[in-house]
Amino acid sequence: MGAGPPCGAHPARGVKSRQTAGIGYASPPNGPVGARKTDLTMAVRRSTKPGPRNALYAQSGGVTAVINATAAGVIEACRRHKGRIGHLYAGRDGIVGALTEDLIDTGRESAATIRALRHTPAGAFGSARYKLKDLERDRAKYERLIEVFRAHDIGYFFYNGGNDSMDTALKLSQLGAQTGYPIACIGIPKTVDNDLPVTDCCPGFGSVAKYVAVSTLEASLDVASMARTSTRVFILEVMGRHAGWIAAAGGLAARKAGDAPHIILFPEIAFDREKFLARVKETVDRKGYCVIVASEGTRDADGKFLADMGTRDAFGHVQLGGVAPTLAQMVKQAHGYKFHWALADYLQRSARHIASRVDAEQAYAVGRAAVELALAGKNAVMPVIRRKSSKPYRWDISSVAIEAVANKEKMVPRGFITGDGFGITAAARRYLEPLIGGEAYPPYRNGIPQYATLKGVRVRKRLSTVFTV
Amino acid sequence: MGAGPPCGAHPARGVKSRQTAGIGYASPPNGPVGARKTDLTMAVRRSTKPGPRNALYAQSGGVTAVINATAAGVIEACRRHKGRIGHLYAGRDGIVGALTEDLIDTGRESAATIRALRHTPAGAFGSARYKLKDLERDRAKYERLIEVFRAHDIGYFFYNGGNDSMDTALKLSQLGAQTGYPIACIGIPKTVDNDLPVTDCCPGFGSVAKYVAVSTLEASLDVASMARTSTRVFILEVMGRHAGWIAAAGGLAARKAGDAPHIILFPEIAFDREKFLARVKETVDRKGYCVIVASEGTRDADGKFLADMGTRDAFGHVQLGGVAPTLAQMVKQAHGYKFHWALADYLQRSARHIASRVDAEQAYAVGRAAVELALAGKNAVMPVIRRKSSKPYRWDISSVAIEAVANKEKMVPRGFITGDGFGITAAARRYLEPLIGGEAYPPYRNGIPQYATLKGVRVRKRLSTVFTV
Repeated sequence: MGAGPPCGAHPARGVKSRQTAGIGYASPPNGPVGARKTDLTMAVRRSTKPGPRNALYAQSGGVTAVINATAAGVIEACRRHKGRIGHLYAGRDGIVGALTEDLIDTGRESAATIRALRHTPAGAFGSARYKLKDLERDRAKYERLIEVFRAHDIGYFFYNGGNDSMDTALKLSQLGAQTGYPIACIGIPKTVDNDLPVTDCCPGFGSVAKYVAVSTLEASLDVASMARTSTRVFILEVMGRHAGWIAAAGGLAARKAGDAPHIILFPEIAFDREKFLARVKETVDRKGYCVIVASEGTRDADGKFLADMGTRDAFGHVQLGGVAPTLAQMVKQAHGYKFHWALADYLQRSARHIASRVDAEQAYAVGRAAVELALAGKNAVMPVIRRKSSKPYRWDISSVAIEAVANKEKMVPRGFITGDGFGITAAARRYLEPLIGGEAYPPYRNGIPQYATLKGVRVRKRLSTVFTV
Repeated sequence: MGAGPPCGAHPARGVKSRQTAGIGYASPPNGPVGARKTDLTMAVRRSTKPGPRNALYAQSGGVTAVINATAAGVIEACRRHKGRIGHLYAGRDGIVGALTEDLIDTGRESAATIRALRHTPAGAFGSARYKLKDLERDRAKYERLIEVFRAHDIGYFFYNGGNDSMDTALKLSQLGAQTGYPIACIGIPKTVDNDLPVTDCCPGFGSVAKYVAVSTLEASLDVASMARTSTRVFILEVMGRHAGWIAAAGGLAARKAGDAPHIILFPEIAFDREKFLARVKETVDRKGYCVIVASEGTRDADGKFLADMGTRDAFGHVQLGGVAPTLAQMVKQAHGYKFHWALADYLQRSARHIASRVDAEQAYAVGRAAVELALAGKNAVMPVIRRKSSKPYRWDISSVAIEAVANKEKMVPRGFITGDGFGITAAARRYLEPLIGGEAYPPYRNGIPQYATLKGVRVRKRLSTVFTV
C-alpha cells in the first residue's frame, strides 16, 4: 500500500466515462446539487491519523439486479486509490455484519471476480432488512458501529440502500461528529422502488422496469393469441408498495394507443372497483382481452390495500395471494371471464439476465462516485443521477446532502398518469424509456448465466465484545 | 406460381442445416422412426388435381416462446417449394379459423416479417384451446374442416400442437381417407410440457426450461442475500400439469450439491406434507434459507391437486394455480418462517427474451421438416427430434406416425428424480442441460424487443355456409 496524501486532502477528480452508444456521464467536482460543507466534513478533515484509513461498504434493504455493479464501482475505485484508502471491507449481510464485526475483506477477491459483480444480481456480500431507529432509541447500536469502525480504523462508510439506509448513514455521521470519531458517511442510492428524491432515478429501478415492460409485452402477446377460446383477462402483479414507478414501467410495453397493458393500477390512484370493472369489460368487448399491470400497493380511497381485503374465493377460502388473485376473482365474479395472473415477486428484481444497460452503468457510476466524494472530503452526501437530456439520453453524476433524501419518498407525479388513472402519459414515457435502454447480458455457460461467487474471506475480529442482533 | 411435379411425387430432400456452435441437424429421407406407408398416404398420392395444391397451417393449444419459429419454418419451406405448394394459409386462432373459414394469407407477409417470427413469442396467427372429440361425436366438425379444405383446395394440413392436436390431425387424415378427399395431415410438435412421446424433446420446452432455470438461480441469489434478516423460504410455482419436466428444469440452477433449488415438487411424486415440511426445516437449519420449485401439478397420494381451484378449461382439464401460496401457508404454520412466492404463469412460456437457442432452432427445424414430409407424400406423421449425442449435443429430425404420439403423455422417468423425490439426478441433468443451451436474443429498440406484427390479410371466403364455434 503506497503512501498517499492525507485523507480528504485531495480534490475530487472528474471522471470521464467511456462513451457507449451515446450514454456517458461526467462526475463534476461540484454539481449544482452539491454537498454542503458541514461540521461533519470538518470532522473528517481534522483526521490526523497517518496513512490511509480503511473503508467499509454495506448493502442494505431489498437487493436488485445491479447493486453488485455498485459494489464493483466502489471496490474498483478504492483499488485505484490504494494510497489513499487502505483496506475495503464489506459487512456480511450489510449493517448486521458491521454490528457483529462480521466483515469480509474485499481485497481477497480477484479482479476478475470484482468485474463479474457487474453482471451478478442480488447482494453478493449479503444485505439486510435491519433498520436503525433514531439516535435516542438505538444509541447503543450506533455506538457499537463506531466501536467496530474504530477497531478497524474505518474512515469511510459507504452505505448502499434506500430511504431508511440514508437515514442511518446520516445519523452515523452525526454521531461521528458528536463523539469526535472522524468518519465520512457516503450514501449510495439503490432501490427498485425508484422513490428516492433528488436523484433523477435510482439504480436498480431501470432493470426491474425493463423486466416488467418486457414481461408485460410477452405475456400480452400470449393472451392475445388465445383470447378467442381461452384467457380473457391477465393480471401481472408487480412490486412498489408505496410508489407506482414499477407498475408505470409496464406501460412501456405498449407501442401504440390501445396496445396492452390496458389498465395499470398505481398506489397513487385510489382503486375504484366499479370503474375498474367497467374498464375491464369495455376492453374485452373492444379488444377481445384485457391485460392489467397492478402494483402490490394498489389501495382504495381509505388507503386500505386490496391485498388485505380478506376476500374469499368461490369456495369460501380466504385468498392467499396478493392483489392479482383478488382482482382476478373480482373480474370473474362480475363478468365471468377466464383469467390468469402472475406474481413476479423476487424474479423481477433479481432478473439480471434482462437488466437495463443504462441501469447497470449508472449503478457502477454511483459506486465509483461515492469513493470520489469520500476522497474529496465529503461527508453525509449521496451521489445522484442527473438527467441532462432525454432524447438522446444523457446523464451525469452529481451529489446531494443525505438529509435531503433520508426518509423521503418520491411518488409518481399525477402528470405521469393519464386522466382516467389507468395509464401513463407521454411525459411518463419520456422519463421512463431511457431508463430501460440497452441490454447488458451476462456471460452464459451450459445455458445458465455465470454469476460471480465470492470467496468472502472474513476479516479477523479485533473486539472481544459480542453484539447480538 | 410455377408448375411443379405432381403433389407428393418428389422424394423428401435431406436438408443440411447451417452448423451453429456445434449444433446441427440433418433431416434424413427415412429416419429409423419413419412414417409408415398407410392407405392415407395412398389417398394423397391418388390426387389427380393438376398444379400445386394449397396448404393450411394452424397453431393449437398453449403457445410458446418459439411456436412462431415453427411457423417461420413452415412458411419459408413452402416458399422454397412454390411450384409444389400453392398458397399457404393459416387458421386465424388455429382450428377455429379453419372451422369458420377465417383464414390468413401468409403470402401477404413480407420475407422480413416471416424472418422476425423466428424471434417472436406467442402465436402470431392465433391459437386455440378447442379440442375435437372422436369422429363419432364431432363428425360435423371434421366434415366442416373437409368442406373448408375442399373450398380452398387444401392438400396439406400442418397442425402445430400437443397431444390433443395430434389426435385431431390423425382423425382428420382418417376422415380424408374415408371420404376420398386427399389431404396430407402433418402434425408438428409443440408443447412447453415436453410430454409428447417418441420425440426426444418438444419445441417450446427448452425455452421455458431455460426461463425457469435462470429465474430459479436469480431468485435464489436474492433470497440467499437476505435470509439472515428476511425471507427464509421462497417458492416458485411453474407449469406442468401432469408431467414435471418444467419443474425438473429448475434443478439446472444448481451448479453443485447443496445449491438451490433445495426442493423440487413433481407431479410424478406424491406430495407428502410431513416429509416436505421436515426437508424445509432441515434446509433452513443448514443453509439459512430454502428455495422450492413446485409444479402446478403437485398432488397428494390420492391424486388430489394441491391447488385445485375447481374451474376447468375448454378441454375439461382442471384449471390450476395456487400451489405456491398453499405451500407457503403450510410452511408458515408449521415453522413460522418468513416466505415469498412467485407464480410465473404466462411469463414463463412467452419469455422469448431468454429463449434457448437450441429450442428456437429445433422449433424452426420441425416446421421445415413438416413441409418436406408432406412433399415426400407422407401423411399422418409428425417430425420428431432425435438425440444423437448429449456431449456434445447433436440432434437431427426424423418422423413418426402420429398415432404413436396422439393422446399419449411422457412423464419424467423415476430415474430422473432423486431417491428422496425432491431433486433431479445426473441422468436428468444430462438430458435437460443441452435443451437450454445457447441464447437467441431478439433485437431491441428503445429497450423493448422488436417482435413481429403480421398484416394478417384475410383470405376471401368461398363458402356461403356459416359455422359457429
